[in-house]
Amino acid sequence: MVGPSGKKEKVDKAGPSGGGKKKKDVKKETGLGLSVKKDENFGEWYSEVCKHEMIEYYDISGCYILRPWSMAIWEIMQTFFDAEIKKMKVKNCYFPLFVSPGVLEKEKDHIEGFAPEVAWVTKSGKSDLEVPIAIRPTSETVMYPYYSKWIRGHRDLPLKLNQWCNVVRWEFSNPTPFIRSREFLWQEGHTAFATKEEADKEVLEILELYRRIYEEYLAVPVVKGMKSENEKFAGGLYTTSVEAFIPNTGRGVQGATSHCLGQNFAKMFEINFENEKGETEMVWQNSWAYSTRTIGVMIMTHGDDKGLILPPKVASVQVVVIPVPYKDANTQGIFDACTATVSALSEAGIRAEEDLRDNYSPGWKYSNWEMKGVPLRIEIGPRDLENDQVRTVRRDNGAKEDIPRGSLVEHVKELLEKIQENMYEVAKAKREACVEEIKTWDEFIVALNKKKLILAPWCDEEEVERDVKARTKGETGAAKTLCSPFEQPELPEGTLCFASGKPAKKWTYWGRSY
Amino acid sequence: MVGPSGKKEKVDKAGPSGGGKKKKDVKKETGLGLSVKKDENFGEWYSEVCKHEMIEYYDISGCYILRPWSMAIWEIMQTFFDAEIKKMKVKNCYFPLFVSPGVLEKEKDHIEGFAPEVAWVTKSGKSDLEVPIAIRPTSETVMYPYYSKWIRGHRDLPLKLNQWCNVVRWEFSNPTPFIRSREFLWQEGHTAFATKEEADKEVLEILELYRRIYEEYLAVPVVKGMKSENEKFAGGLYTTSVEAFIPNTGRGVQGATSHCLGQNFAKMFEINFENEKGETEMVWQNSWAYSTRTIGVMIMTHGDDKGLILPPKVASVQVVVIPVPYKDANTQGIFDACTATVSALSEAGIRAEEDLRDNYSPGWKYSNWEMKGVPLRIEIGPRDLENDQVRTVRRDNGAKEDIPRGSLVEHVKELLEKIQENMYEVAKAKREACVEEIKTWDEFIVALNKKKLILAPWCDEEEVERDVKARTKGETGAAKTLCSPFEQPELPEGTLCFASGKPAKKWTYWGRSY
Repeated sequence: MVGPSGKKEKVDKAGPSGGGKKKKDVKKETGLGLSVKKDENFGEWYSEVCKHEMIEYYDISGCYILRPWSMAIWEIMQTFFDAEIKKMKVKNCYFPLFVSPGVLEKEKDHIEGFAPEVAWVTKSGKSDLEVPIAIRPTSETVMYPYYSKWIRGHRDLPLKLNQWCNVVRWEFSNPTPFIRSREFLWQEGHTAFATKEEADKEVLEILELYRRIYEEYLAVPVVKGMKSENEKFAGGLYTTSVEAFIPNTGRGVQGATSHCLGQNFAKMFEINFENEKGETEMVWQNSWAYSTRTIGVMIMTHGDDKGLILPPKVASVQVVVIPVPYKDANTQGIFDACTATVSALSEAGIRAEEDLRDNYSPGWKYSNWEMKGVPLRIEIGPRDLENDQVRTVRRDNGAKEDIPRGSLVEHVKELLEKIQENMYEVAKAKREACVEEIKTWDEFIVALNKKKLILAPWCDEEEVERDVKARTKGETGAAKTLCSPFEQPELPEGTLCFASGKPAKKWTYWGRSY
Repeated sequence: MVGPSGKKEKVDKAGPSGGGKKKKDVKKETGLGLSVKKDENFGEWYSEVCKHEMIEYYDISGCYILRPWSMAIWEIMQTFFDAEIKKMKVKNCYFPLFVSPGVLEKEKDHIEGFAPEVAWVTKSGKSDLEVPIAIRPTSETVMYPYYSKWIRGHRDLPLKLNQWCNVVRWEFSNPTPFIRSREFLWQEGHTAFATKEEADKEVLEILELYRRIYEEYLAVPVVKGMKSENEKFAGGLYTTSVEAFIPNTGRGVQGATSHCLGQNFAKMFEINFENEKGETEMVWQNSWAYSTRTIGVMIMTHGDDKGLILPPKVASVQVVVIPVPYKDANTQGIFDACTATVSALSEAGIRAEEDLRDNYSPGWKYSNWEMKGVPLRIEIGPRDLENDQVRTVRRDNGAKEDIPRGSLVEHVKELLEKIQENMYEVAKAKREACVEEIKTWDEFIVALNKKKLILAPWCDEEEVERDVKARTKGETGAAKTLCSPFEQPELPEGTLCFASGKPAKKWTYWGRSY
């Protein structure tokens, strides 16, 4: 295959060890390699991939250690998002981890949504607390009593705060690293406006940032859309989200949410302001969040039977440089070339590392860095030294190329961009192959069993969604709405709801979900 | 007074309202101004200053809301420190908030130090947990079981991890914003080395970063030194710290600590490695932390009767630009000049804001921004417009200067540097005026009652420190060692300990402390 640069590329057909040994041998010798395939046992595969070295399982169920390999990804996303919201005049703050019960329970729908998952502190040292104190599952009720205090007149608006913090939801079903954990890291933005128009506008601006995190950084395609009444944020007016889809399990996954809370919390917490005419009005509020779940979605989307595949934009190591010495070769010369290569790349702002360990073979190193998902490998052996070139090997498609050292930096930059684009395109094609447009209940059930991402005409009635859930309840979980995409296909006059037979109001994505 | 720039400077003698009104009037009309003086009621003064707008008191005692005004300071320090430790190859990670009791209690001295302050989660939703779970007061026991797993051979060392997180210590005595709160933000670094030499070296490298945070960023002078056996970290080998001093209360305050843990935790958690000879050895460990306490120390050090004074390097707004229109003046021209001034400063990387609110007088605005501690104010009135100049007013000393608009940026840059330096020099002079070198118990008691920072020759025996504590126990708290400074004055042969009469081994700072 000939790449856009005009050079010949070879697709790597070798096994995951890369160095000539068969996978099984390497696995036996070194513990390297995955013991299951992504298509065969997805859950086990995911757990194994996460262990290299994104997370470590912890001795409290549902809690996980984020190791530097995943934390670096979180930090890169954080740098992007934090700068973007600062441009929007959002300011960072920090509210306490603890909530007193009275405040937590003030908004009825809201607390109903969260109550079963709230962790309670009842003791300090050996003493019982007078009143149990909750750990924040989210901070609406933590923050809004103070919004009420701080907002007096129209000049205090808009109020736009954000915090980067941990939250706790003591869930009992299926803890999964990144995707569903009892403690997780997130940002939560909480804003208040004088008018609904301003609030509506911000909901979509933030949603666009979430889309960019997924599509531009994590190379994961998402659908922007509106959540159903059943699935919206407890206590809010409406919820928008970016939704991803995992073809292997046929499950949707809510990627991030941007809520318009309307005036419901404003009413409960008395967040009023005096408008320019001297009249008292209630504010309009939004809240929006994305979490470390993003990392899990990325792993599920891109990983393969060799391990992780990290998109270059979020990889803490974008390029790993590995010396490939032979018995009689100029080993020192090769090592020096590796170091010089890393220096040149680092100076150009590319995150590069060399692996000069003398107790592992090149083949072992190839497997090891493939497992960890580094987007590009550079090999330097005697022949490369002779020809003043390096060999590049792409993690996403295994393509190999020989690159003259004179044009190293431009080539590597170009390759990293290509990898980023290709990862997105491949993921998008896979997801699109799963979308199935259906019209009837029978088609729906067939598609659901085929793990499809189902696009169906719907009457948009809460009761009908509850009914679909009840009728599909099974071992693998009930189907529900994922979102109604903002980009709606045409809905011909007279189209009927697939579930109720009533007139359809919109196209909506349905499926099982995480 | 003539500044180094050769221009005439006038020191502002006006009251805090700045706009001609007397303080009392402004206070009455607007709620502006502090109701107590720093020298008269320090505790009340501190609480009032914090409320503008660093923190907000929270409905759970000992918990505080960090508002954007203080959060921005934390973020600036974080950016500096995070970059520095990354240069030292420290990597960020995130360990869970929760600790299981078995692990928490594994290191006996350590848990004795923290047990009374540990908050316990015992319920989720309406269910009791099988085993109560602790919230981390610090993460040694959270992390080290995994260090034991991850560290196998000498090639796994050094292991250098850090996390930015919240910790909880449910203290009951004197909650004070920033200085002593039940939840606070910090970074905690945890490193493991093959040799004690490497660990020792890192302890001091980190301590130097802490010194830089205090002296270069917060303009707070600190002493680097060694904590006594009584005061060192529970379970560690030795503790170094940077110590600040608050002249108004005569109390020392531990600014940040860098601990060498020795091999004690390594022993408890079996953190071993195979050295190059194939023998099993235990690692040497450090841990080090600084917290949002830094912000409290800064407020206490610099604030005055007008409110906060923020060092330019950490102020989220370094320059506030205020229009001073008169009845017949060219108001629009003045407003445009303000906006142009902010643009010019912002483009040069100076954090500048304008205050164009039309419902407040210039005088009110002066007081308001003085209260919030903005380092430099720029006023633009009709005369300034005419002369193509602006007037600058320094927050630290009230000095005023007229600056031609043509050289605005250079002048403001220079002024901000001068303010930063002057704040440090003033604070240092104040602290040095408090240091009292003593030799006898009687001198010690006199100095203690005079709220001095006492430098005394000491025999360095634990029992003697306990005895001093017991003998000075009173309403304002017992005296104890703050640190033995690394820069030791000469200790003449035959000098005796001020407290025990035994031969003195070193000079040590003593005092009451936060």
